[in-house]
Amino acid sequence: MILELTDNIILKNCFEAISTIVDEVSLECDSEGMRLRALDRSHITFVKMELNAGLFDEYICETPEKLNVDTDELMQILKRCKPKDLLKLETDESNIKLTFEGDSTRNFNLRLIDINYDSPTPPRIEIPVKLNLPVELLGDFLEDMLIFGENVKFIVDEDYLRCEGQGEFGDSEVKYIHGENVQEIIESKFSINKIKDMLKAKKLASMVTLSLGTDMPLFLTYNIGNGDGLLEFMLAPRLESEDE
Amino acid sequence: MILELTDNIILKNCFEAISTIVDEVSLECDSEGMRLRALDRSHITFVKMELNAGLFDEYICETPEKLNVDTDELMQILKRCKPKDLLKLETDESNIKLTFEGDSTRNFNLRLIDINYDSPTPPRIEIPVKLNLPVELLGDFLEDMLIFGENVKFIVDEDYLRCEGQGEFGDSEVKYIHGENVQEIIESKFSINKIKDMLKAKKLASMVTLSLGTDMPLFLTYNIGNGDGLLEFMLAPRLESEDE
Amino acid sequence: MILELTDNIILKNCFEAISTIVDEVSLECDSEGMRLRALDRSHITFVKMELNAGLFDEYICETPEKLNVDTDELMQILKRCKPKDLLKLETDESNIKLTFEGDSTRNFNLRLIDINYDSPTPPRIEIPVKLNLPVELLGDFLEDMLIFGENVKFIVDEDYLRCEGQGEFGDSEVKYIHGENVQEIIESKFSINKIKDMLKAKKLASMVTLSLGTDMPLFLTYNIGNGDGLLEFMLAPRLESEDE
Repeated sequence: MILELTDNIILKNCFEAISTIVDEVSLECDSEGMRLRALDRSHITFVKMELNAGLFDEYICETPEKLNVDTDELMQILKRCKPKDLLKLETDESNIKLTFEGDSTRNFNLRLIDINYDSPTPPRIEIPVKLNLPVELLGDFLEDMLIFGENVKFIVDEDYLRCEGQGEFGDSEVKYIHGENVQEIIESKFSINKIKDMLKAKKLASMVTLSLGTDMPLFLTYNIGNGDGLLEFMLAPRLESEDE
Repeated sequence: MILELTDNIILKNCFEAISTIVDEVSLECDSEGMRLRALDRSHITFVKMELNAGLFDEYICETPEKLNVDTDELMQILKRCKPKDLLKLETDESNIKLTFEGDSTRNFNLRLIDINYDSPTPPRIEIPVKLNLPVELLGDFLEDMLIFGENVKFIVDEDYLRCEGQGEFGDSEVKYIHGENVQEIIESKFSINKIKDMLKAKKLASMVTLSLGTDMPLFLTYNIGNGDGLLEFMLAPRLESEDE
Repeated sequence: MILELTDNIILKNCFEAISTIVDEVSLECDSEGMRLRALDRSHITFVKMELNAGLFDEYICETPEKLNVDTDELMQILKRCKPKDLLKLETDESNIKLTFEGDSTRNFNLRLIDINYDSPTPPRIEIPVKLNLPVELLGDFLEDMLIFGENVKFIVDEDYLRCEGQGEFGDSEVKYIHGENVQEIIESKFSINKIKDMLKAKKLASMVTLSLGTDMPLFLTYNIGNGDGLLEFMLAPRLESEDE
């Protein structure tokens, strides 16, 4: 397997978020591309990454491979890749070999984890409402809500996305005209910090898609490179009864 | 009560310093403006803030109100206000309602503290010497003095303001030509960190006024918006006998 | 003794590294210049600084002096010197007096340490290979190696300088074409963090000289002001047997 990627910021930003959420992942590679599915330790966040072969400058993978890696170690290596470096990825029996070619050539061999690891299957859920919004703005809203408490309630109606936060000392609320065609009222509550973890990949795209339904999981999706890739997170809602 | 303030940096910077010095304050509002008087827990620093109605873009306060707030919580909200946001402040029975209008509209309700709180009366003291100096320079002087010890001695004569710091490993001294009409020699010592707390409001103005007298309290005053407001701190001196 | 130095970044950067490595030093001054030799507490790093009289704007030292100082305290003072300040250094019986002349005049007296201190003599070693390389690049290489372990192995052959790092989770390698006339193969291993300490002086020069021999100490040398000064570190190698 040999991969080359000029736009190395893609892998770097994906793993900036992934390594915060899950400790180990299984990268599944075949002729079509690289895929990853993982569940965080507390079983609250589900992560899905798909990088199609088309995203890469060169992509050769004749026999499917499963690469089990420690996400922190991988992230430490990716951090060392400079924006202009050409990133190459190869594998041998027991290592992922990353090469960064720029002013100098730098090689990193990361040991594969020798565990039989089954990627979790994502639940099939139909989420009623999809909103596109600037990722920076979503980050701001979460900070606004974090003043008083740990949770954010998203409320969507025909015109607005509202974020609400509450706590002992006060409450906060933000209203945002979503500009989408929404026919129902949606209300759901989530842990702010779990969403902030997903926003560590925010340099992937200027807009994110938020999919919401009443007391249903939230989907936060980054589209990468004109549909050739995506990074998606699914987060379980906090139910009212959990608050006490 | 309804207040609007475009230049939100005023409130933000005042509370940047105030929230470091006092935990709770009573904001007293009437038709003339907003006032605050408070004493820090160790009774060493007295704080006075006066923001006249004229500073605000809109100021309506028909019946006087006393708003008791937790300064940390208020500061956390003010931090979220962006430089170009229009800041609105309203009250109901149990909340201060802050609204930031910019790219989106964000509301924050801060619970009022339900305590009968009497603002302390500032002592009436005639301070002999008043100096204007750049706030950045004063900050630098304090850092210079902090190398060897915790206290700074201010010495003023006809020509110079001198700052002196002392410690086990050495001493430091700065001389600054004050350019004011001073007829006497003044000498007084203060805790450097207490003055540094006051300088957290340093973006309020490029110059501060320092009022000094031998073994008398120091007054540090920021003039806000051409005399329409002020933030003033009074700090008790450290007497020589305290050093041992 | 009176010294004046416009280019105060020289002293500042030397002591940025020196103060990290040794706690106390003896500055030896005579008519030719200022010299320092010191050994770190663990006896692994030897430090040599030489600043010839020619580097200074004014240099008067009629009788040789030994100035024993605490490097942390001296560094704290030097940090306060602004880039455009003229730095003056004088001595009296018990102090180094540093004066920074800029917007204002600031004096710092640092107590001399009253200990009879003999500067260590550097070992005379002939090191076979000398390489010049950009200091920023060397810093990058060390960070690359630090991902997996604490040590870096330098391997020099006719064409390349290679850096190798190893650990439980993987290994990393960088290859750099050194462009020097090297006739032999050199291999030696060092603590990464000890070299990083030396790089705290990296603003002294864009290039450093690295002198290497198999299982011999490393010399890292900054040339200051066209040969009028140097800061040099000698670091003991880590022998293979030490790893277990």
